[in-house]
Order: sequence, then structure tokens, then C-alpha cells
Amino acid sequence: MTTAAPAATMRTAVLTEPGTVVVESRPVPEPRPDEVVIEVRSVGVCGSDTHYFDHGRIGDHVVTGPLVLGHESAGVIVAVGADVDASRVGERVAIEPGVPCRSCAQCLSGHYNLCPDMVFHATPPVDGTLAEYVTHHEAFTFALPDSVSLDEGAMLEPLSVGIWACRRAGVAPGVRVLVTGAGPVGQLAAQVATAFGASEVVVADVNAHRLSVASSLGATEVVDVSSTSLADLYAGRPGPDVVLECSGHEGSTQAAIRVAAPAGRVVLIGMGGDTLALPLGDVQNRELWVTGVFRYANTWPTAIDLVASGRVTLGPLATGHFELEDTEAALTAARTDPEAIKSIIHPVREGGSRSPAR
Amino acid sequence: MTTAAPAATMRTAVLTEPGTVVVESRPVPEPRPDEVVIEVRSVGVCGSDTHYFDHGRIGDHVVTGPLVLGHESAGVIVAVGADVDASRVGERVAIEPGVPCRSCAQCLSGHYNLCPDMVFHATPPVDGTLAEYVTHHEAFTFALPDSVSLDEGAMLEPLSVGIWACRRAGVAPGVRVLVTGAGPVGQLAAQVATAFGASEVVVADVNAHRLSVASSLGATEVVDVSSTSLADLYAGRPGPDVVLECSGHEGSTQAAIRVAAPAGRVVLIGMGGDTLALPLGDVQNRELWVTGVFRYANTWPTAIDLVASGRVTLGPLATGHFELEDTEAALTAARTDPEAIKSIIHPVREGGSRSPAR
Amino acid sequence: MTTAAPAATMRTAVLTEPGTVVVESRPVPEPRPDEVVIEVRSVGVCGSDTHYFDHGRIGDHVVTGPLVLGHESAGVIVAVGADVDASRVGERVAIEPGVPCRSCAQCLSGHYNLCPDMVFHATPPVDGTLAEYVTHHEAFTFALPDSVSLDEGAMLEPLSVGIWACRRAGVAPGVRVLVTGAGPVGQLAAQVATAFGASEVVVADVNAHRLSVASSLGATEVVDVSSTSLADLYAGRPGPDVVLECSGHEGSTQAAIRVAAPAGRVVLIGMGGDTLALPLGDVQNRELWVTGVFRYANTWPTAIDLVASGRVTLGPLATGHFELEDTEAALTAARTDPEAIKSIIHPVREGGSRSPAR
Amino acid sequence: MTTAAPAATMRTAVLTEPGTVVVESRPVPEPRPDEVVIEVRSVGVCGSDTHYFDHGRIGDHVVTGPLVLGHESAGVIVAVGADVDASRVGERVAIEPGVPCRSCAQCLSGHYNLCPDMVFHATPPVDGTLAEYVTHHEAFTFALPDSVSLDEGAMLEPLSVGIWACRRAGVAPGVRVLVTGAGPVGQLAAQVATAFGASEVVVADVNAHRLSVASSLGATEVVDVSSTSLADLYAGRPGPDVVLECSGHEGSTQAAIRVAAPAGRVVLIGMGGDTLALPLGDVQNRELWVTGVFRYANTWPTAIDLVASGRVTLGPLATGHFELEDTEAALTAARTDPEAIKSIIHPVREGGSRSPAR
Repeated sequence: MTTAAPAATMRTAVLTEPGTVVVESRPVPEPRPDEVVIEVRSVGVCGSDTHYFDHGRIGDHVVTGPLVLGHESAGVIVAVGADVDASRVGERVAIEPGVPCRSCAQCLSGHYNLCPDMVFHATPPVDGTLAEYVTHHEAFTFALPDSVSLDEGAMLEPLSVGIWACRRAGVAPGVRVLVTGAGPVGQLAAQVATAFGASEVVVADVNAHRLSVASSLGATEVVDVSSTSLADLYAGRPGPDVVLECSGHEGSTQAAIRVAAPAGRVVLIGMGGDTLALPLGDVQNRELWVTGVFRYANTWPTAIDLVASGRVTLGPLATGHFELEDTEAALTAARTDPEAIKSIIHPVREGGSRSPAR
Repeated sequence: MTTAAPAATMRTAVLTEPGTVVVESRPVPEPRPDEVVIEVRSVGVCGSDTHYFDHGRIGDHVVTGPLVLGHESAGVIVAVGADVDASRVGERVAIEPGVPCRSCAQCLSGHYNLCPDMVFHATPPVDGTLAEYVTHHEAFTFALPDSVSLDEGAMLEPLSVGIWACRRAGVAPGVRVLVTGAGPVGQLAAQVATAFGASEVVVADVNAHRLSVASSLGATEVVDVSSTSLADLYAGRPGPDVVLECSGHEGSTQAAIRVAAPAGRVVLIGMGGDTLALPLGDVQNRELWVTGVFRYANTWPTAIDLVASGRVTLGPLATGHFELEDTEAALTAARTDPEAIKSIIHPVREGGSRSPAR
Repeated sequence: MTTAAPAATMRTAVLTEPGTVVVESRPVPEPRPDEVVIEVRSVGVCGSDTHYFDHGRIGDHVVTGPLVLGHESAGVIVAVGADVDASRVGERVAIEPGVPCRSCAQCLSGHYNLCPDMVFHATPPVDGTLAEYVTHHEAFTFALPDSVSLDEGAMLEPLSVGIWACRRAGVAPGVRVLVTGAGPVGQLAAQVATAFGASEVVVADVNAHRLSVASSLGATEVVDVSSTSLADLYAGRPGPDVVLECSGHEGSTQAAIRVAAPAGRVVLIGMGGDTLALPLGDVQNRELWVTGVFRYANTWPTAIDLVASGRVTLGPLATGHFELEDTEAALTAARTDPEAIKSIIHPVREGGSRSPAR
Repeated sequence: MTTAAPAATMRTAVLTEPGTVVVESRPVPEPRPDEVVIEVRSVGVCGSDTHYFDHGRIGDHVVTGPLVLGHESAGVIVAVGADVDASRVGERVAIEPGVPCRSCAQCLSGHYNLCPDMVFHATPPVDGTLAEYVTHHEAFTFALPDSVSLDEGAMLEPLSVGIWACRRAGVAPGVRVLVTGAGPVGQLAAQVATAFGASEVVVADVNAHRLSVASSLGATEVVDVSSTSLADLYAGRPGPDVVLECSGHEGSTQAAIRVAAPAGRVVLIGMGGDTLALPLGDVQNRELWVTGVFRYANTWPTAIDLVASGRVTLGPLATGHFELEDTEAALTAARTDPEAIKSIIHPVREGGSRSPAR
């Protein structure tokens, strides 16, 4: 480390068993030569964090020991490894949470998100960022301009999912988009679709509040699918060229596929069951492309730009702020508050509320 | 018509009700200004013809009146419409069976196969080519070099499906391909994958004879999935980048999706049930693209080239030859002969076996 | 024609020899079955019109007889051909000025703009739209929403050039764009780049007024290259991923190519000399793609959407309005007024200022 | 190093000044953790090696100190770094000569060949492979199957240029290709185009022997452009969809551009002057894409496959074999032998002709 190190220990929030998060003291990590040490200021809570908290697993990813949650993160660089420019100390940064091997066929082909050796925050057994300090590869640690807050910096992670989905789907002017599901990812996907120039962005959900947020954030049309079916909505008008499926709900996904335009692209973002009963005739007869997104690649610079330029608005999505000690409350906020969208946990408060732990 | 017309009437094979084909006399059709009149010499039997014969419908396409079957066709131009170069009379030609509107968004974007106003041979209520003469738009009627026979000319239609699938899937050197199902379309898809330079073409089926044909036509490997699962086959080696699914069998399709490589493309060519239970985690975690093919666009010149250059071999696929009067036998040949692949019906025999009907 | 026809004759502005436009009376044209008759209300003057007026030719396109100029056009449908829905009469429309053959390899592949048999307004020997009435293929005649004026409708043509260039160049969020030349096409290209989500749109010119217009229309940065070179501007910062070259000036084009980012796309839109001295090392070492645009394909719906949604502003570009009789003044307006950008000629004044000619 | 190291010193051929190569003894290099040590058996001579030998520079790349030439290389792994699987010792391998930083925007986007921090064999000041031993990143060191010889392994490097060019150009069945220049790269580009399924591969040169080699290696047509111009050749028939320009000759390049088909791709592979007088109207009116190739990315697995499967034949291109001590003769062989295509230098002879140097 080329600069003054933080103190030797730090607070970290550890999932010790399903339903229990304990704040523990751990050593502050040392950076490898190509890493930086980041004081973590803002960590967004993702549905996957809550799912691990509740169930101890997501599909094949099983929590088998203590796990630090958190992978939507921003903070300030406080030290750098031997090969990193020391002038980065002090930089306000957002963290891209996965570091790929950078040598395999996937990495060298530009879709490093599919690297089989990815090391990704808060995916067992890799610890996440609910800690005062984390180390991270410098190439996956992005400087933020002054106009982007650290809370926004943390939310660049879910924003990246939306960017990746829109890139894969070819959203552009002239393209009609349908977003099914208006949770945090759906809200961001819809905004990104607008920023990519989509001619029409319809957001579908059954939650009036979420639809109202979507409207205020630029959706050209919202539809409460508890009262109006997608089939009815699109009767007599062109179907969407792109479906960004964010609900994970099978019926909703099928309904969206049935209205998709010829040569349409359907991107499955929401996590659903083990299988999806895919309407085969629709896929074949209209030559739809159906795919999923798995994280993202090369999205942070664009995400920063979209927020800094005001094309995407993240502020209204942060609906709760929590101390590290209140991680359990942050993880479960959505259960009691129907208007909660995104909780932000602050391992270290902005403004230097505390010295490095000791 | 700018040239001497054929006689006024002709023989045609008409599906009058499911299970019954009757040879009827009908007027020889007159060409519109942009059409040619073709003496039909070779018509391949497609599974869809047999399906209409058996069931009177395919999905939403219902036979509600007498229907002439046949859409894999070749013959000789005998007359031309007013706007067509008269020198085309005498040309040996293959027929691309669908004529799109050429004015809609799909047509003007290069995927005219998705034109909602497509007029396609033997798709109700449009008659097919099991007749001595048909008229057809000249732009969809392709001259054959001497080295390509009229039987081969007829088989350019299923070959086009394979070309279209390989184009959509991005088959090229360096790409590993798995073909599931070794019927006529699978055989052709496998050959096309080889012609596109695929590094590996594995063909899977449960019929040893068909696998043997696939081997002889260039597959790098065949697998009898009644004894070896795809999961076992691909254990410890890279999965296919491209799956060309030609079986229409749900279990087979699922097994293929489960072994597909990251960023793989899965093209659903075979006709299956109404829905496919799609393994969602595979599609999402490896960002597979799943699509279908609906006919083809801009494939005939390439198909002709592949056959003329010897890169694709069609001869061994023609396993039976029939007169128009034997259409029912041609449609059902595969039921009694396990080695039957493709029946060819000859409304007019090559060599001018008869004068135009009267 | 299914509806009441306009009167038998009409006024039309005819280029009889270089430098001379005469208003003549001609028969009102009759529509073919797939055509509409349009009362022409707004025609934008393009540099090519002025070039034909001055020189009687553009490259290989030589004016050998009387020619009606004008190809940026909008108006109102007053009659329809036999195969067109009669309800289109009364529709306010913009005209895509080229009608391709729709049957050749280029047309069927989705780049109909490269059709060798294109019939294009005001390209010799095809007459343009400086007439009270023109006939046009209905598929290339686009309904305008109320929010888009007919003057804007006429300017959808140059806007389409910008859309086509941005599509070909892959402009999207995260992409840095440099526009060289801030004439009408450059202004539109810059606006389109913004609408496609470009992260940075730099406009370069030597005319302070034009740069000021570009700034007001959303360019993120303008540069007067008479005082600051592109090399200096981009020293120490990433070069543009996309260059939209609208000046036709060799030195400017070379300077832009030299600063283009690795894997950048350079689209040559401006008309320059016979050859361009292409900096070879830049193209090879950074694998730039260099191309031109020739008209456009499938852009009108997007153009309408961009204007109707307010993402592109056309109003300030219309800097002069002229009667048909003042066509010569319209063609030469830019010579005397340095702030002139686009002249609009009104063969028929909006509001029905006159009955059809007689 | 995890295995028995070779002896401490080795022979290496060093360019000490233009025109002089001296065999020197140098320490055998030590591998870093992610590197292997390779006993170099075959090194192909590239035109760039000869150019450095003659002129001491190529464009901006200037030889300012002693330089080891050679970057087309194959050999046998004799030791591995700490992080490399020791079982790789003994592996017969081909070397991809450039190792990119793997962290920059270019690397993470899949075009690592454009990495600004590339370390590339025999590009000053990086030494090449004309030595008994070299170290190299294991991910850029590819195992060869038994069917591919080490001489062929060395020639995978120029083969990779052809693969990269064909990928960028979209060569596939249905595509017509013109290769201008039948030197080693042109010969390989033509073979690769055939392997990618091109419908037509025309090779143009002025050297009858080279054209004869091209014919024997699968070109569908060769043309001696000293007697037949490209304009004449393509008069009355469709021009090439893809031009692979391997001559570096301006007139040849221009002639090829003039005959390229609409929407064609022109890949500038040959090294020419500082600028190319690009025929602007051809590029604009037919919307040609003009680009260059700079090395390659992700090509070795495909190159190995093309050779192993017999789709590309490298043997006839190796027209001379040399000891390390005869490097100068190898570099200049083409000057005295008009039929020389590729010289191969053998720092260590196959079959273990010597023990590691001491």
C-alpha cells in the first residue's frame, strides 16, 4: 500500500444464518498490487441480498458460511496497491462488483460477465461490501464526477442492468419498448429505454404507486395489468419491439411475448421459476429473440454519464437510509412500506462521521 | 402473356378433405405483368403437406376449402407476363414459394419473411404447386445452373431453412454446432452448418439410419440420444455455441439448451407443442439467445451456390419419386419406409413426357 | 382515382437551363393503383437543388431536359389510386422522395436506398415536387400527427439523413460524437446524435452563428476550428467514437479521422471532391470504419417520432418562406444571408389559399 | 518456476543495427506467475521483420536499441510460472505474440488488439522470439493437436490476420470476395475466405507463380491485373461484396473499391503509403465500409481448427528453412527467389537436436 492505511479493524455486517445479520469487527483488508482500498459510504439493498437473508441461497448459489452482503456500492478511495496511481487516493468512486479473470474466452471476447471464474461481491463464498472498507480491482472502480452523489453511485449497479438489457435488445429511436414490472430494476430499465431514445416506453405493473413513479420518471404510458390486459392494450396498435421483463412472473412474461412485434427482442431480467412456459408459436412465427441478462459488461461509464447528464434520475428511488447496524431493517423495509423502492445502507457516513475503526 | 401459352387446362392434385387428394382439371393460370408461368417438374413433400393431409390444419392455419398442396418446387418457365423479359422462357428455375407485399415495414427492413400479407404456396387459402403449371412473381423465381437438377431445385426450399437458421445463429469457423433431430431439415441444417465453416457439427437423433446419413454428409460427430444423453456427451468439453433444434421434441430441446455454451444461440426450427418449458436459469445465467425461424429471406442465391459448388449434397435425400396421381402415396411414404427422407412428386416429367394438359 | 380529382392543370417550377427556373402549367398527374395524389404545401431547398440550378449536374447525374426540382416535401392527400384506402384522402403527409423497385437484392435485403432502379424526386430525369400536385407510392407517403407541421414534414428528409447516419454509426448512450460542419445537415445530425443518447456531441465549424445555433439545439460543445484545431481539442481526452462528417471539406475530414477513437466509425455525409486523401495509418492502426451515407432507408417513422416528441427541433432551421414563383430566390437565399439555413417553398399555401389550378 | 529449468543461457538473434543480425548469448528468461517458458522451434519471417532489418523502423515504431525479431512462433513448453498448471510442460504450442493489458476499455470490450498498452513480440522495444527460449502469458499460448506441425503453428499468426479480416468483413456463404495481392497474407486470406464459405474468391496479382499457388489452394478464379483490369473483369457481373486488400498498392486498392458491390466491405490489410486517395463517390453512393485490420483478436482457436481440419493448407507456403545463425538469409530470401513465400527459422530444431543452451 503506497499511502497511509486505515486502522487495523473495521465494522462489517455479516449474514451468519438465514434471518440473522451481526455486526462484527474484522481486519481491514490489504490491497493487492492492482487494487484500491475503498471506504464504503453507500450500499444499495438488492432483492438478491434480501433473498439470501431469507433463504440462504439463490438457485445454485448457497450460503455455506458467514457472508457479508451488499454489492451496490460507492465510497472513497483511501489507499492503493503498488501498481495503482497514488493520485487516486481521495477519489469518490462507484464499484462494479464483479471482477472477471480477464483471460478466458468469455473475457477476451467482450462478455466478461459470463466469465466462469468471476469473483462477485456477496455471491457465496465472496463477501460483499457491507463493511467500512473493501478492496477492489482498480479497473472496476470508477471515478464519480461531483454531480453524482455516492448514493447515486451505489445505484449505478442496478442501472447497469438496465443499460445492459437495452444494449442487448437494441433499444434506439424508432423502437417501441414494454417494461413489465415496475420495481427498482423495472423503473431503471424504463428510464434507460427512454435515454436510449425509445419511441414508446410502456410500463406495466399492478401497483398503482409504482406506476405513478414510472410516469413521473418518463414512461410514455403506464398500464395497470390488474385491470387491462396487455392483449387489450396492444389490440389494434403495433406491439413492442422490445420487452424488458422485470417482474419474474410467468403469466406476465407470456402475455408480453404474445404481444411482441415481429423480430422483437424479449429480455428476461426478472428472476422467476425454474422454467418458463414459452409460447412457442409466437417465438417461431414472429422470429422473436428471447434472452436473459446476467449482470452486465462495460456499463459503468455510460451509467455515470446518464446520471451526470440528468437523463436518468436515481434520487427518488432511494426511499430509506440506514446505518450498518440497521442492516436487517434495510433488508426488510419493503415488507412494511409499500412505497419503499430502494434502501441505502451507509457503512461509513459521508462527511467522515468516524475515523477508521480500531 | 408474351409467348405461346400452354393449353387451357391442366391436372392438379387437390386436398379435398383430410386424407383425400383428388387429381382435378383446372384452367392453366394467366400471369400478371410481373409473373412467369412455370411448368412444374419437381415438388418435394414437406412435413407440413403431410400434416395438412392428415389433420386439415397446422395451428391457426386451417384448410377450409379445396387446397393444392406443395411448396418445394422447380420447373421450367413456359411463358412470362408483360413486364418480364421474354428471354426467361425456357429457363430452368427454382421457386421461392412466398411472395411478400414488399411495401410493409417488415419487407422494407429486409425480413420480408415476417410480412403479414405474405402469399405462400400451400398455406390456406393459397394453392400450392402440385399442378402442371403455376404462376409466380419473377423476382422469386430463380434460374438454376445446368449443374443443379430440378429435383435439387425443389429441395432448395428446405435447404433455405437451414441457411436462414445458420445465418441467424451466426455459424462460422470457430463455432460449435449441435443439430438435434436428423430428419430432412436436420440433415440440411447440419450440412449448411458445415458449409458455413462450423468447427464442430454434432448431430443427435434416435434413428441409427438417419445418424448414418448425417455422418456420411459431413457431421463431425453423431450421437444416439437413446443411449447417450447430451449432458453426458458434453461433460468435460465445451458445449455448442449454436443449437439448431430440428426435432420439435421438448425434452430434446431442453437438453440442448442445458448444454449450450455461454452466449449461445438456440434456433427452434422443429415444430413442437404450444409451449416449451424453457429452462430459465440456463437462458439467463449464460445469456443464451433463443429464437425460431419462420421460413427465410434472401436465401435462394446462396442455396443455389451451395449445391452448385458441391458444398451441400441433396441427392441422397430424395428417396422416392411419384407421379401427380400418386400424391397420397408420396405424402405417406415415410410411414412404411423408415429410410424414407424426402418424396419428390413430378407433375410434369422431365423430358417433356406430355404436352400441356387439355 | 377513387375520389374527386383536382382540376386538370397545375403550376410547376421547372429548371429549363442552368440558372433559370420557369413556372409552367402542366397536367395534374394521375395516380397509379398504388399511388396517392398529394397537394404540395411545403418543399425545402436542399444544396443539391441549388447545385443543379447552378451547374446542371451533380457528378454523373446530368440535367439533359427540363427538370422540376424539390425533394423535401409535405402536403395533403387529395386523391388515391385504385388499390389505396380512400380514407387516406385528407391526410397530412410527408413524402419519402425515393421509390425503389422493391424486387432487387438490395431492396429485399433492407437497404433499398441502394436499389439501382430507384426513382427519386429531382434526380434527372425524374421530376421533383415543386408543383401543386405530385403522385407518389402510398407506402412512401407518411401520415403526420397534428403536432408536426407541414414545414417540419418537409424537413423530415434531411432529418432522415441524420437518422440514417446515426444508425449506421451505432450512436447510443456511451458514444462520443463529433459533427464536422454545422450546415443544415450537420445541425440535424447533431440533434439526432443527442436523441440517440450520445454522451458527447461536439460540433465543429468556422461559422460562429452556426455554432451558436448548434449550441442552442443541444450540442454539448462547439468548436470554431478556425481558431482551435481538432487535434488540440482532443489532446488529453478521448477522441470521438463516431464522426459525422458534414462539411465535405478534405482537411476537416482528415483532422476528424486523426482524432477518432479506436474502433471508431466515420460517416462521410458531406459531398466533397472526387477523392479523399485518407490517412491510412489511422484507419488501419485503430481499425476505424469509414463509410458514406446515400440517402436513407426506413427512417420516416422515426423522424416523425423525434419531431413529434420534441427530441428534435426543426423550426429554427426554416429561415425563409417563398412562393413557387420565387423559387430562384429560394434557391439562392443563402448567398446573401449568412444566417440563412433552410428555405421553404410553398407551391400551395396552407389553409387552401387557392383551389386546384385550372 | 515449478519445473526443471532449462540451462542459464541461450542463443538469440539480435538486430543490432539495420542490416545486421548477430547471434548473442543471453540469459534464459524467468516466467512470471502467469507465464510459461517455451522452447522456440519455428519462427516464420514476416515482411515487418524484413522491414525492420532493412530500415530500422515501421512508421512510428522505431528500433532504438538491439531488438530480437520474430513474432510468428511455435514451440514446446518447458517450464511454467507459479500460477500455471504444471501439466502444461511438454505441450506443443503456438504463440499469439501480443499480450494486452486486459483492463482497459478496448480489452474489456473484446477488441484487445486495440489495447494501447499491448506488449507485442518484435515491436520495439519488445523483443521477439528468435531465441531458444521465450516466456509468454499462458492464456496467449495455445496447445496444438498432433495433426498440426510446429511450422504450421508458427504460420497461425499470418493466418490469424486472414481470419480477423474475414470476420470483420462478414465473409459467409453467398458472399463474393476479391483478394488483391497474392503474397503470404493474400494467400492465407483467400484460403480463409473459402473456409468461411465465400461463394466466389477471386485473387488478383501480377505474379503468375503466386496466382498459380492461389489457384491450387482453392481460389475460384485468379486474374493477372497486368493484363486484365478489375474493371474489365467485373464488367457485366456482380462486383465483390468483400475486398481483402493485401497488396498495399494504391492503384490496386482504388480499382478494387471501384468494383465493390453496394454495401460492400473493403478491408485494408496491406501496408501502403501514408494516405490512400479514396474514391469518395464509390464509398458514398454505394455505402461501402472501408476499414483496416490491426493484428487480430480471439483467432487462434479458429486458426488451429482450420488447419487441423484441413480447410486451410499452410505447408506449401513454407518455402525455406533456416538455422538461427542464418537469420539474415531467411530475412532476405524473397529477394533472390521469386517463388519464395515464407521462410521458417528454427532456433531449436525439432526432435531435440540440442540440449538447452549453456
